[in-house]
Amino acid sequence: MKNFSGVHPTAIIGDNVVFGRDVTIGANTIVYDNVTLGDGSMVGANVILGEPVGEFYSDPGHYKNPPLTIGPKAIIRSGTVIYSGSTIGERLETGHRATLREKSSIGANLRVGTLSDVQGHCSIGDYVRFHSNVHIGQRTVIGNYVWIFPFTVFTNDPHPPSYEQAGVAVDDFAVIATMVVVLPGVRIGKDSLVGASSLVKREVLPETVVAGNPARQVASIHDIRNRSTGENVYPWRYHFDRGMPWEGMGYDRWVASR
Amino acid sequence: MKNFSGVHPTAIIGDNVVFGRDVTIGANTIVYDNVTLGDGSMVGANVILGEPVGEFYSDPGHYKNPPLTIGPKAIIRSGTVIYSGSTIGERLETGHRATLREKSSIGANLRVGTLSDVQGHCSIGDYVRFHSNVHIGQRTVIGNYVWIFPFTVFTNDPHPPSYEQAGVAVDDFAVIATMVVVLPGVRIGKDSLVGASSLVKREVLPETVVAGNPARQVASIHDIRNRSTGENVYPWRYHFDRGMPWEGMGYDRWVASR
Amino acid sequence: MKNFSGVHPTAIIGDNVVFGRDVTIGANTIVYDNVTLGDGSMVGANVILGEPVGEFYSDPGHYKNPPLTIGPKAIIRSGTVIYSGSTIGERLETGHRATLREKSSIGANLRVGTLSDVQGHCSIGDYVRFHSNVHIGQRTVIGNYVWIFPFTVFTNDPHPPSYEQAGVAVDDFAVIATMVVVLPGVRIGKDSLVGASSLVKREVLPETVVAGNPARQVASIHDIRNRSTGENVYPWRYHFDRGMPWEGMGYDRWVASR
Repeated sequence: MKNFSGVHPTAIIGDNVVFGRDVTIGANTIVYDNVTLGDGSMVGANVILGEPVGEFYSDPGHYKNPPLTIGPKAIIRSGTVIYSGSTIGERLETGHRATLREKSSIGANLRVGTLSDVQGHCSIGDYVRFHSNVHIGQRTVIGNYVWIFPFTVFTNDPHPPSYEQAGVAVDDFAVIATMVVVLPGVRIGKDSLVGASSLVKREVLPETVVAGNPARQVASIHDIRNRSTGENVYPWRYHFDRGMPWEGMGYDRWVASR
Repeated sequence: MKNFSGVHPTAIIGDNVVFGRDVTIGANTIVYDNVTLGDGSMVGANVILGEPVGEFYSDPGHYKNPPLTIGPKAIIRSGTVIYSGSTIGERLETGHRATLREKSSIGANLRVGTLSDVQGHCSIGDYVRFHSNVHIGQRTVIGNYVWIFPFTVFTNDPHPPSYEQAGVAVDDFAVIATMVVVLPGVRIGKDSLVGASSLVKREVLPETVVAGNPARQVASIHDIRNRSTGENVYPWRYHFDRGMPWEGMGYDRWVASR
Repeated sequence: MKNFSGVHPTAIIGDNVVFGRDVTIGANTIVYDNVTLGDGSMVGANVILGEPVGEFYSDPGHYKNPPLTIGPKAIIRSGTVIYSGSTIGERLETGHRATLREKSSIGANLRVGTLSDVQGHCSIGDYVRFHSNVHIGQRTVIGNYVWIFPFTVFTNDPHPPSYEQAGVAVDDFAVIATMVVVLPGVRIGKDSLVGASSLVKREVLPETVVAGNPARQVASIHDIRNRSTGENVYPWRYHFDRGMPWEGMGYDRWVASR
């Protein structure tokens, strides 16, 4: 097939949908009412943008879809569902079959891996990375430059099932490894590192490493060294820049240049 | 778009399919032969109802699809696959891309979250709640009013890979938190609570709290109190009623009124 | 509906696609350029074969899709996405919404369960079994006759986020149970068994059983007995043959007959 651009003829487009220039919409994709998608965005097949929120099911006759705004240069892969009622910054990139629910405020350059699920009512900063199959409970608040690895879950109900919701808070530059569970209302401090398969029950202090079930403080991030080279590897922003705003110039120079 | 009702023109509907009144079938949804769907049900896009079971692949020419019956007022969200050969009560509600396989008997008011996967040959009671990405192995037996939180897995093979299947059994009102693994054949007792990230290797007694890897009994459910108010929070049926049959009247009055 | 065969009229087929004899392609399935699919293969609905790799997004105008070759008698269930740029042997079988990414070399008789995600750049032998929701990180190398159970994750970044990738290696006949995390670069030895909910931080020796967080050696596989019969159950190849090349004749006779 020719490398397709434009809106595929099998796509279904609702009312009051605004596409920027050079937008591609894949086969069988559905865009519900009141969606705005920025310039240069590429949307794959079988995607749903502006999925109706819960009120639709109780009174479909009178339902009006809340607006969904997605910034320019998004890459949204096949099978992803993004609900109505959120605002998402530029350069969103998703894997396949990601889910982003309603009432979320999301910054620029979010990457969300295949099968990841943001449950809505969340605040997410800039340059955040969710790998595959990450589950972000409602009321989560995430800063900037945060990394979350596969199969990690942020919970929010302190006494399930209850009416309370205590979201997890994650500060800038924190790294949370694979298959971690963070209990409701816990704060993950700036520059901290949570090891794989941990159960985090209490606050993680800045620049500390925690690990285990339950998680305990096991080191300072400054103690961790590359096994081959012996060099420090954290804070990671001094050693890694791919896709970050300081790419090619170093973190300190970037900060000085702002 | 108008708030759609009826069968979308892109839907593919098999033979001997029976829809009740006021049924909505979304775009690109496939309903295979011998599916019955009750009054007032709303089915999203890209759903498959009556997915053929394994025999289809060995002899497609002679294959006949077993019946699938889904009760009234179902809400089935996009991307969900429900196999032929099961019976499901009224008010089923699924998230996106849930999977419910064959030979299962499922009661009323089941809610199954996004990506959850019921592997079939299961018995599930009424008012059961599976949050996102719950995996229910074959031969599981679940009572009524059971809550299972994200990324929890019920296994069934005591010596993998083997020919044995020993399903997990969960009694009424039990609550199983996030990212728990329950080993084959284990019973989870009535009103019990399993903490997050636990590995459950042996029976959980009624009204007990277990936690850890491996899980050990850490408390009675009557010991757990709301951190803010100091009040008891379990058994949860005396403190939570949303979506339950005793909503608005209290559990004891509801029992007395039956 | 008649039991469908052939290419469904709603399917979208690219250029230079080669289908063998008796191939079935389901509704709304997309086959991108340069895909070869062997005789007798059955592809469900909403599948994507030959999904474009990352270079597509940086320069769609000049992009050419790398070839994807899938051997005969594949069964690919609905919602699965297989990237371009891999080679897959005969009798591939997938569950629903599996993901197999680029630059992988995959042997014969791979079974990949619902939601499983092979991240690409992997080498996988023959007769490997991934149950549901298994996550295989880039640079993983898996031998033959390996079993991996639900929600198990193979990681690859020793200092996340970093530029290093150290894939997991799994030797023949190894069995890795449910919800295990294997840390980067770890080797899982031949005939070994990793217990559920383990965090594997170091090499697992052949014929050993490891379990726990962190995983420790707890037994030899020869110590494990069936609780009912008292018989040895490992190495499993002497006790289980369903779907294996020694089915019906026993492992030793099969080896002697080769």
